[in-house]
Amino acid sequence: MTLNSRPARPVLLGQNQYGKAENRVVRITRDGATHHIKDLNVSVALSGDMDEVHYSGSNAHVLPTDTTKNTVYAFAKEHGIESAEQFGIHLARHFVTSQEPIRTARIRIEEYAWERIETSGADTDAGSRAPGADEARHSFVRQGRETRLTQVTYDGERWEVVSGLKDLVVMNSTNSEFWGYAKDKYTTLKEAYDRILATEVSARWRFGWSDDGQPMPDWEESYDQVREHMLQAFAETYSLSLQQTLYQMGARIIDNRGEIDEVRFSLPNKHHFLVDLEPFGLKNDTADGAVYFAADRPYGLIEATVLRDGCEPRIPVDLSNL
Amino acid sequence: MTLNSRPARPVLLGQNQYGKAENRVVRITRDGATHHIKDLNVSVALSGDMDEVHYSGSNAHVLPTDTTKNTVYAFAKEHGIESAEQFGIHLARHFVTSQEPIRTARIRIEEYAWERIETSGADTDAGSRAPGADEARHSFVRQGRETRLTQVTYDGERWEVVSGLKDLVVMNSTNSEFWGYAKDKYTTLKEAYDRILATEVSARWRFGWSDDGQPMPDWEESYDQVREHMLQAFAETYSLSLQQTLYQMGARIIDNRGEIDEVRFSLPNKHHFLVDLEPFGLKNDTADGAVYFAADRPYGLIEATVLRDGCEPRIPVDLSNL
Amino acid sequence: MTLNSRPARPVLLGQNQYGKAENRVVRITRDGATHHIKDLNVSVALSGDMDEVHYSGSNAHVLPTDTTKNTVYAFAKEHGIESAEQFGIHLARHFVTSQEPIRTARIRIEEYAWERIETSGADTDAGSRAPGADEARHSFVRQGRETRLTQVTYDGERWEVVSGLKDLVVMNSTNSEFWGYAKDKYTTLKEAYDRILATEVSARWRFGWSDDGQPMPDWEESYDQVREHMLQAFAETYSLSLQQTLYQMGARIIDNRGEIDEVRFSLPNKHHFLVDLEPFGLKNDTADGAVYFAADRPYGLIEATVLRDGCEPRIPVDLSNL
Amino acid sequence: MTLNSRPARPVLLGQNQYGKAENRVVRITRDGATHHIKDLNVSVALSGDMDEVHYSGSNAHVLPTDTTKNTVYAFAKEHGIESAEQFGIHLARHFVTSQEPIRTARIRIEEYAWERIETSGADTDAGSRAPGADEARHSFVRQGRETRLTQVTYDGERWEVVSGLKDLVVMNSTNSEFWGYAKDKYTTLKEAYDRILATEVSARWRFGWSDDGQPMPDWEESYDQVREHMLQAFAETYSLSLQQTLYQMGARIIDNRGEIDEVRFSLPNKHHFLVDLEPFGLKNDTADGAVYFAADRPYGLIEATVLRDGCEPRIPVDLSNL
Repeated sequence: MTLNSRPARPVLLGQNQYGKAENRVVRITRDGATHHIKDLNVSVALSGDMDEVHYSGSNAHVLPTDTTKNTVYAFAKEHGIESAEQFGIHLARHFVTSQEPIRTARIRIEEYAWERIETSGADTDAGSRAPGADEARHSFVRQGRETRLTQVTYDGERWEVVSGLKDLVVMNSTNSEFWGYAKDKYTTLKEAYDRILATEVSARWRFGWSDDGQPMPDWEESYDQVREHMLQAFAETYSLSLQQTLYQMGARIIDNRGEIDEVRFSLPNKHHFLVDLEPFGLKNDTADGAVYFAADRPYGLIEATVLRDGCEPRIPVDLSNL
Repeated sequence: MTLNSRPARPVLLGQNQYGKAENRVVRITRDGATHHIKDLNVSVALSGDMDEVHYSGSNAHVLPTDTTKNTVYAFAKEHGIESAEQFGIHLARHFVTSQEPIRTARIRIEEYAWERIETSGADTDAGSRAPGADEARHSFVRQGRETRLTQVTYDGERWEVVSGLKDLVVMNSTNSEFWGYAKDKYTTLKEAYDRILATEVSARWRFGWSDDGQPMPDWEESYDQVREHMLQAFAETYSLSLQQTLYQMGARIIDNRGEIDEVRFSLPNKHHFLVDLEPFGLKNDTADGAVYFAADRPYGLIEATVLRDGCEPRIPVDLSNL
Repeated sequence: MTLNSRPARPVLLGQNQYGKAENRVVRITRDGATHHIKDLNVSVALSGDMDEVHYSGSNAHVLPTDTTKNTVYAFAKEHGIESAEQFGIHLARHFVTSQEPIRTARIRIEEYAWERIETSGADTDAGSRAPGADEARHSFVRQGRETRLTQVTYDGERWEVVSGLKDLVVMNSTNSEFWGYAKDKYTTLKEAYDRILATEVSARWRFGWSDDGQPMPDWEESYDQVREHMLQAFAETYSLSLQQTLYQMGARIIDNRGEIDEVRFSLPNKHHFLVDLEPFGLKNDTADGAVYFAADRPYGLIEATVLRDGCEPRIPVDLSNL
Repeated sequence: MTLNSRPARPVLLGQNQYGKAENRVVRITRDGATHHIKDLNVSVALSGDMDEVHYSGSNAHVLPTDTTKNTVYAFAKEHGIESAEQFGIHLARHFVTSQEPIRTARIRIEEYAWERIETSGADTDAGSRAPGADEARHSFVRQGRETRLTQVTYDGERWEVVSGLKDLVVMNSTNSEFWGYAKDKYTTLKEAYDRILATEVSARWRFGWSDDGQPMPDWEESYDQVREHMLQAFAETYSLSLQQTLYQMGARIIDNRGEIDEVRFSLPNKHHFLVDLEPFGLKNDTADGAVYFAADRPYGLIEATVLRDGCEPRIPVDLSNL
């Protein structure tokens, strides 16, 4: 909370931040005829000595959001985009160290993945020019599966990097049960001994790295490994509740990735209900050929933090607004 | 953070919550031939003594999310829906007081507004039956402007009620300037002395009410008044920055509504750029008939808390994930 | 279908069109201190002698989509925006008459409505400048209810104007029944004698006007009247099926608005199911206080054309892709 | 158009259809421990002798949309889901042949693809039960790339099958130019000799198969092949215009897949603009390390039909509503 020095103001200004959100930046690097894409959505949030712009409208301390946008594009050119995390670190450091009134910078980045298109290697018809076996070196299809995320925060001394992903939809078509739960007068649910377990993973994980003096993690390697551990834990856990699966996913990350101290999940239970086909003389149990209704709303929503013993939880609990 | 009693577990469980999200409930009350609608989207999040379900999958402490859904519908019938806030209070109290392992309940509600359709009062043709002047008493059109929000949290002793709205798009077509800002080598923005100021308001306000012993605010009256003050402050502020307008909106609420202690805003600056028509021999300044390009991304994003002197800020700062 | 003059081409080009879609244009007109907004989303589609650009990539006949965008903004300045329809007519005429290879222009426009913010007329605090009773003359809130639509097509001789709306959500909380339907072995639905009827109206209506020699309709007046007739017909029809309501809505328009020859509706049946509360000892019939579950998917989808006797149907049947 | 037998009705009913849209059906087949998913969104539209339900509300000819929903689920159980097309054929035939008033059935299906999760094959910790090397046999991640589509229409005699896809985002980071276009007074665009070409493919292709007497295509094989040809044509075409690329994509399909007679594309030109970094002393041409702004709106929109010589175009031209 910012304290207001003027006497007798009954309404105070609390935490505040500002910046340009959703700067869509694509950078193409060329390795001979082979191209590489980085495709980011970068949001900048700055805070510091900003009382006056709120109280009187004086912009003397305000670097325009338009300037923060320009900086994103100029830095992409000048420094390249080694990883989303590294790019966020460059930006955050710049804002905090170059503008005196700015004390803290938070950079949030979404990253979209692309795969190469496999080509035939054959010549094409007369309507096109000079294609060859190397065609796919500059041709891509957007993967569309999950969105990679990172948030880098810097206050001039300490770094906090929280990476993650969203929109990753996964399903186990068996090895999930749900029974032995508490019951009250509003309980009608029947116990299930073989159900579909499906969710759309939203996860954030916080790195222990916080200081320029420490060696920096390999951000790209870390992302790939965390994602794989998470998926494998989902797949390999025989689940008695989505909470149990969530904990296994987090524990697998903490156990295997020393650079991660804390993980937060928001897991909607994407219900798949066995359809009652008895009125039509059809048996629809979970044996071969089961038919499910994939429901939209309402859905169970399971959220939790999993963290390394001795570490403080710092990821905000509300990844969802619902 | 929940402590794990087992020895030597290196991975701990932190904050966790679960429940059924997005229960869409509509209730129609009949006042003779005149009907009234309450149209809500209710999300339940419960927390408490939930270690075991995460560690071992034992559901003994878990009231199923399906049961929380049933409770929403049953309570809508039994207790009615006086207001979103009052309905949330009923639900939160029930979960915390009826299930021993549940220590805290958080109920989030979206409310959609409906208006009556004005009818002609005339008889219609032979295809319909018995219409009359009272027809519109049961006919509605969804307003679609903003979505009303509330969040009720109860831990068995204290209440916290945070209400709000989202999706409210407003515009001042003049009386907005932006100049005198900090400049660095990446600054190219030109100063503006007459610009459009438009935003999509996302706001949350926290009530001082926290105890069953205190008189409860009139939730419906409060919402209408807060919304009106906020809109008027937006309209009546001659703006030198969106931050200044934001503060005025918050201060107007705090000044006028004693039941509110804190307001948090997330205000995207929905840029409307004057189109450069000089290449076509057309002058396009802000005088009569100005033509603007309404941009999507990127956008400025201004967020701040405004609070009553002496009160602690408690609304989380991240209303947006960008 | 365009015929290809080259010998022996086995793959032909059929109908094709191109242009710039979703040009977001806002125009502010000033009537002294009172401002007025027009807020449009304009999409241009041009077709004509375009074989070569498809077969060989020669752009000689192609006016760039960027130019069509510039034209939208320049015309907004030069000609103003009297109505969406009139603006579309200006644009379509321009493209067809100014570029020889372009034979047909189709302009689609979405229009967003704004209402004035009511202000207090009172002075505000020291943080703002010189407000007065006239403040609201330039302050607006976006209505958000329905989106107004128009499509203007011109081939150099004939005009076709199809206007409409989408996203208009309406509900009758009673005066709807559904019974006496066909049954087969898969029918389990129970007959209903008092149900909620709710839909999200998507409608298009075609004007008889097609020739510059004919007097042009008053587009703004027409829209307001069509919308009102449609809403009143919805409200006043005692409904035995959504099809019957749809027909009444269309017939009311055709009967009352001589300028309209044809109406097409796509009406999802937004199901509101009475919740079964018997397991909890609660009776939940349609009397006072009924509680409904508002379902998302699946939904009934009712689509039909209603047209003036003697007119040909020309509105495409597929307003939805589902 | 349906003729109305009653005398003197001035308002006629035209084309109409009804059914249940967006039935979300998931079917799991078990091949020992290895599971397979089919994940569909099925929409049913029926038409026929339906005048009375519109004119008087009599539902005697109306099979409820609820019944069509039940039929989708029952057929998924009874007949399985060999492919989306085959499932649509089963359903369409059923409705047309079993209900006398129903003359035509149109089934639209979206299909979502899933991939297997690769697992470690290792045992997991004590929180889970009996995992093994075969774990991934029932664990899936939703692919998320494109959505597969089909539409099956049957009138009791002829079949029309139009399959396709949407949401497939592709990019060539070079080998695209745009120059030599028509210019008028509103043209400001500079010619481009090396640009990014990116689009989100929406495509529909119509099969020649139309009769139960003809051998049916292999729908799964056809989809995979069409998709691959389309992607390769996109990748291998040196593009002078998006229209040229579109034509090559269609021609490649027609040339290689004898079962397809017609293809329709709707291709938004997802603009990637080189950012002007000269104000910051940075050169940003298309050489190594170019930085682009990925724009949202407006966008070019290129749509065309490509068809086999001698075939009639039957796919509706409007895949987009913009």
